[in-house]
Amino acid sequence: MKGTVLHCPRDIRFESQPDPQIVQPTDAIIRMSATCVCGSDLWPYRGLQPINGPTPMGHEYCGIVEEVGSAVRSVKPGQFVIGSFATSDNTCPNCRYGYQSSCMHREFMTRAQAPVLRVPLADGTLVPTPGVPSDDLLPSLLTTSDVLGTGWFAADAANVKPGSTVVVVGDGAVGLLGVLSAKQLGAERIIAMSRHEKRQSLAREFGATDIVTERGDEGVDRIIEMTNGIGADSVLECVGTQESMLQAIHAARPGGYVSYVGVPHGVQLDGQQLFFEHIHLHGGPAPVRRYLPQLINLVLNAKINPGKVFDLTLPLDQVAEGYRAMDERRAIKAFLRP
Amino acid sequence: MKGTVLHCPRDIRFESQPDPQIVQPTDAIIRMSATCVCGSDLWPYRGLQPINGPTPMGHEYCGIVEEVGSAVRSVKPGQFVIGSFATSDNTCPNCRYGYQSSCMHREFMTRAQAPVLRVPLADGTLVPTPGVPSDDLLPSLLTTSDVLGTGWFAADAANVKPGSTVVVVGDGAVGLLGVLSAKQLGAERIIAMSRHEKRQSLAREFGATDIVTERGDEGVDRIIEMTNGIGADSVLECVGTQESMLQAIHAARPGGYVSYVGVPHGVQLDGQQLFFEHIHLHGGPAPVRRYLPQLINLVLNAKINPGKVFDLTLPLDQVAEGYRAMDERRAIKAFLRP
Repeated sequence: MKGTVLHCPRDIRFESQPDPQIVQPTDAIIRMSATCVCGSDLWPYRGLQPINGPTPMGHEYCGIVEEVGSAVRSVKPGQFVIGSFATSDNTCPNCRYGYQSSCMHREFMTRAQAPVLRVPLADGTLVPTPGVPSDDLLPSLLTTSDVLGTGWFAADAANVKPGSTVVVVGDGAVGLLGVLSAKQLGAERIIAMSRHEKRQSLAREFGATDIVTERGDEGVDRIIEMTNGIGADSVLECVGTQESMLQAIHAARPGGYVSYVGVPHGVQLDGQQLFFEHIHLHGGPAPVRRYLPQLINLVLNAKINPGKVFDLTLPLDQVAEGYRAMDERRAIKAFLRP
Repeated sequence: MKGTVLHCPRDIRFESQPDPQIVQPTDAIIRMSATCVCGSDLWPYRGLQPINGPTPMGHEYCGIVEEVGSAVRSVKPGQFVIGSFATSDNTCPNCRYGYQSSCMHREFMTRAQAPVLRVPLADGTLVPTPGVPSDDLLPSLLTTSDVLGTGWFAADAANVKPGSTVVVVGDGAVGLLGVLSAKQLGAERIIAMSRHEKRQSLAREFGATDIVTERGDEGVDRIIEMTNGIGADSVLECVGTQESMLQAIHAARPGGYVSYVGVPHGVQLDGQQLFFEHIHLHGGPAPVRRYLPQLINLVLNAKINPGKVFDLTLPLDQVAEGYRAMDERRAIKAFLRP
């Protein structure tokens, strides 16, 4: 088969790769119904995260089970399944605490921008849907694999509750779905920080009540002003840079909650500054597996339409154009059809 | 009157100071029943925190109200009162959220190592007891002013619940009272990290079930081993150095909670490391005022005896010896009688 491989910054190729095979008895092989490009793929694509030689790419996936290893019990060939970007046995203590993305047997998925994929720990990682969903649901279902689950974790980790005032830093797909998640969790006021018209409009559609276009200290001043000098109850940091992290921390009220869900790049936090900010801080790789059943249900019951973050659809073999469009911010997120 | 003044590192003097007076109509003047030396006083005493010229010292206090300003309503002369090291109006939004130590009108107390003290925002800061308590209760009541309230916040901010496995980093008075607080909040297992025999013994008396003498990476390895490879649910960081902070963060399980309650000195946290540790982090100046009524009740009802952290009692004019004894770790905490 052919799959997506990053050779060096901005050199992404769709090229021959070995056909995935069952390696462990707990594996499954799935034929991809859809995959996509993640904002986090742009870090190595832009050369901001080193790679060790040619690197197969992709970690968001859903599709039909083709084959399972001898130990797999809970999924079977023919089922439509969705899994997290991090595999999990879903039985170890970390999994039982709801932190499946820190499973003691975790592997981070890669190689998903391909027509066929091997998924380790299939029983603990994959969630089957009742029946095979119709094609029009694929974009929204695919988001549950990472980007929606991550936005949802951002809202949950930032303690969003009915009535909360929430700020979302970052207008990528995760930030936009952080807005959607905050809305679902009952936030009263959702302030999206964005200076990009199309993204502002999608943020409003997902539930943002206010848009702030200022950034850095000016952005923080604006949030403080809008919250009567106090700061927000919950701030979702969905970027991962030093500037966005400090912006998030300063926008929260004392006793407020800041979540961060994008892998931080070059972020250093001063302990004393954090101390006097008086905030709660929680983040990490989103435990998507914890939320998958709930999020799949919301999609199947047409309660949410997170698939709207895909504003570019390409055949899988044009994956390189997906990367380019996202890198240049021409597209929010590229949906790939094998 | 005479009061305690730090002139430069290790030069602490009990010397003439102006008599405190009502300055604002919201002030109260109290005659000290007892005061003490705080672990945090040792930072400037040791020269690890700069001072701008001679600095009056002390922020833990309880005593009898002598005089109140014209606007004070809830305390009156003759009452025995206890207040937090941070003043608060107890009505601003931050106070109403329970973060009185980030009150919008906060002042950090100083000048309490003296026989008489001016307390700003008396209505919001001071809590009177029913009647004047007997002398033997003074040590325990005094701890509620800071060190117990801070240990309690450490346990609360680290989400200690019935059944929790808790680690306490730091065997100073705050750490020891963090042990006591964790016990009161129902922790099942409390691991105190200490290599000091007297402090280990007090930790056990306060509820520690295990003592770990190793530090740094070795200490972390020991905790991970004792928790079946997972880490603790809750870790209370009660020191404020880079080493103790990393020790605390690494000792918590993914999804676990780390609190930090000592002003961090020279602490820098790497965002990416924090991300993959997957922990909750919360700390800051303890909102002692939130807990004062509850903690005073626990003391008055003889449910707890936190005053045991005082293992040295001195007349106030020998305050310098209190600093020396704590600096040399000959004493856990020095109780001063005016």
